[in-house]
Amino acid sequence: MAPVRNSRVIFNEIPSGYPEPGKTVVYDVSPKIDPYAVPLNGGFLVKILVLSIDPYMRGRMRDPSIESYQPAFPLGQPIDNFGVGLVVRSENPAIKVGQHLYGFYDFQEYSVYRDLTELRRARVLDNEQTLPWSAYLGVCGMPGQTAFYAWNEFSRAKKGDVVFVTAGAGPVGSTVIQLAKQAGCKVIASAGSEEKIAFLKSIGTDVAFNYKTEKTLDVLLREGPINIYWDNVGGESLEAALEAAAWHARFIMCGMISSYNSVDDHPVKNLSQIFAKSLTLHGFTVAVLHDKYVDRFYAEVPRMVAEGKIRFKEDVSRGLESAGEAILEVQKGRNKGKMVILVAEE
Amino acid sequence: MAPVRNSRVIFNEIPSGYPEPGKTVVYDVSPKIDPYAVPLNGGFLVKILVLSIDPYMRGRMRDPSIESYQPAFPLGQPIDNFGVGLVVRSENPAIKVGQHLYGFYDFQEYSVYRDLTELRRARVLDNEQTLPWSAYLGVCGMPGQTAFYAWNEFSRAKKGDVVFVTAGAGPVGSTVIQLAKQAGCKVIASAGSEEKIAFLKSIGTDVAFNYKTEKTLDVLLREGPINIYWDNVGGESLEAALEAAAWHARFIMCGMISSYNSVDDHPVKNLSQIFAKSLTLHGFTVAVLHDKYVDRFYAEVPRMVAEGKIRFKEDVSRGLESAGEAILEVQKGRNKGKMVILVAEE
Repeated sequence: MAPVRNSRVIFNEIPSGYPEPGKTVVYDVSPKIDPYAVPLNGGFLVKILVLSIDPYMRGRMRDPSIESYQPAFPLGQPIDNFGVGLVVRSENPAIKVGQHLYGFYDFQEYSVYRDLTELRRARVLDNEQTLPWSAYLGVCGMPGQTAFYAWNEFSRAKKGDVVFVTAGAGPVGSTVIQLAKQAGCKVIASAGSEEKIAFLKSIGTDVAFNYKTEKTLDVLLREGPINIYWDNVGGESLEAALEAAAWHARFIMCGMISSYNSVDDHPVKNLSQIFAKSLTLHGFTVAVLHDKYVDRFYAEVPRMVAEGKIRFKEDVSRGLESAGEAILEVQKGRNKGKMVILVAEE
Repeated sequence: MAPVRNSRVIFNEIPSGYPEPGKTVVYDVSPKIDPYAVPLNGGFLVKILVLSIDPYMRGRMRDPSIESYQPAFPLGQPIDNFGVGLVVRSENPAIKVGQHLYGFYDFQEYSVYRDLTELRRARVLDNEQTLPWSAYLGVCGMPGQTAFYAWNEFSRAKKGDVVFVTAGAGPVGSTVIQLAKQAGCKVIASAGSEEKIAFLKSIGTDVAFNYKTEKTLDVLLREGPINIYWDNVGGESLEAALEAAAWHARFIMCGMISSYNSVDDHPVKNLSQIFAKSLTLHGFTVAVLHDKYVDRFYAEVPRMVAEGKIRFKEDVSRGLESAGEAILEVQKGRNKGKMVILVAEE
């Protein structure tokens, strides 16, 4: 057969503020691949079905001389992130044609790998519950793991605890909210649009508010004090949470999107509350807790999702050409659910 | 016998910046007491020997409508803090004349109490090691407890860990430094005068520096990364510690004197390091850990002090009339060691 297009998304320029579609990343249709003839050299060929767009990707769009917990995207190379792919050919006896593999993929239509270690945190998905593959990028993927691992590791939740979750409508936040409700907590959650607030209410959030129209501190002083704070945002939200924290509250420090696209973030001025109230702030990245919780996660979460005990919302963007725009939407918080790129139908 | 003077130190005015001797607190010589005749009503009479001046007292000089972990000083009443007193009369069968009692005392020469609970965290000091009584206000008192309790609770120190201690020459910091050296750590410590730097070196600090003449971040980047950060200061030191922290570092959040006398403190702009490096910040006040560690503390620390394994330095101020100045010196960091007021000889 003749070669087909193997389009990809290239990291083209380090952004100074928000990433710009067509400039920060560019869509490149020039590469070709012959899926039937490309040499595998003992490896396997994957057709990428879905790719994930996550807030943390902004941190990888940096000068590689700056160290961080995730490697910088190399300029001129495809960006990469979690995805699900279908094995279409294999010379590796451990990998079967027809298997669905979760792992780290370059943003292109087809890729050849030697073994699973190249996919990092790879997993063969049996998908007994026949969930859509995209669910394995959100509630059943890295964001869901982030929520599940750290909630279990750090929350020390008791029935009746008051929990505050920022970016509550995202895949991490919404999973945290539902785990907190299962634990018998009262949940306060913030988001930035009325559509997101409606979603927060639909998943059981006790107090859902739009941080753009209501002051976070006012809500927390009225509804708190808070025993557990899940921080996806930082800045003003963190400051309000410190102010409204109960004695011995646990702060789970997951991300700070308020500062990802700007150096002029809201300085937090009340850090003395950390010792005054005997707070503990737990910083983590999902990789740190992965080995401890991963098997329990895949045993429990897809089942809870299939049973409707954890609900999720997606924003599906079609085609790799939409990646640049999708990345910006997530940084701006304009996505309507977990952002995924549908690269190809099966 | 005729009544004698029972002078005291009154909280007179809430300061806006640094406390002002003679204004924030005033020395009042008008009260009288007859130690031989004052009615005890089943209680006991204590002659105060030494009183402690600590940084945290600044937080009590506030409008009482502002909640905090320590009650505000009531205006027009004597200030109070830890001290050691001698029992001179007693009608309480549990308290013997001649005993030395550690606990919370009003700043005056004599006081009558009903029982030990009124002294809060009271302890009868047997002082087998015959240390000076003032030592029970510093290394063998609340500051030493602060260091000992939290170091044992939170540091998870391993041999070779790099530890950074701010306000290293104070009674908390200098005790932490010596516990860290006993644990086989490399210790970096900061202080604000050459005299304090000399003391830091004399107790085994590996890297002692004057934060007024050398940039904390430069020192930490050169000598770190740091595994354990003991924060007595906040602000710029905290920011530098976040920047120079090792993956999984423990931050022990003990105090933030840089912000006690000013609302315009240095805003910490790199809090995203908390999740990026999987840091844990442990806020605490000594009272929270007291019951768990107090017996071990009194069994181990006075003995280590007597054996010279933990060294300490004091700045003894004579007479209650010196309290206002001593409070200011501590807030300014101009004291030359643990600040105590010698109220009376035995």
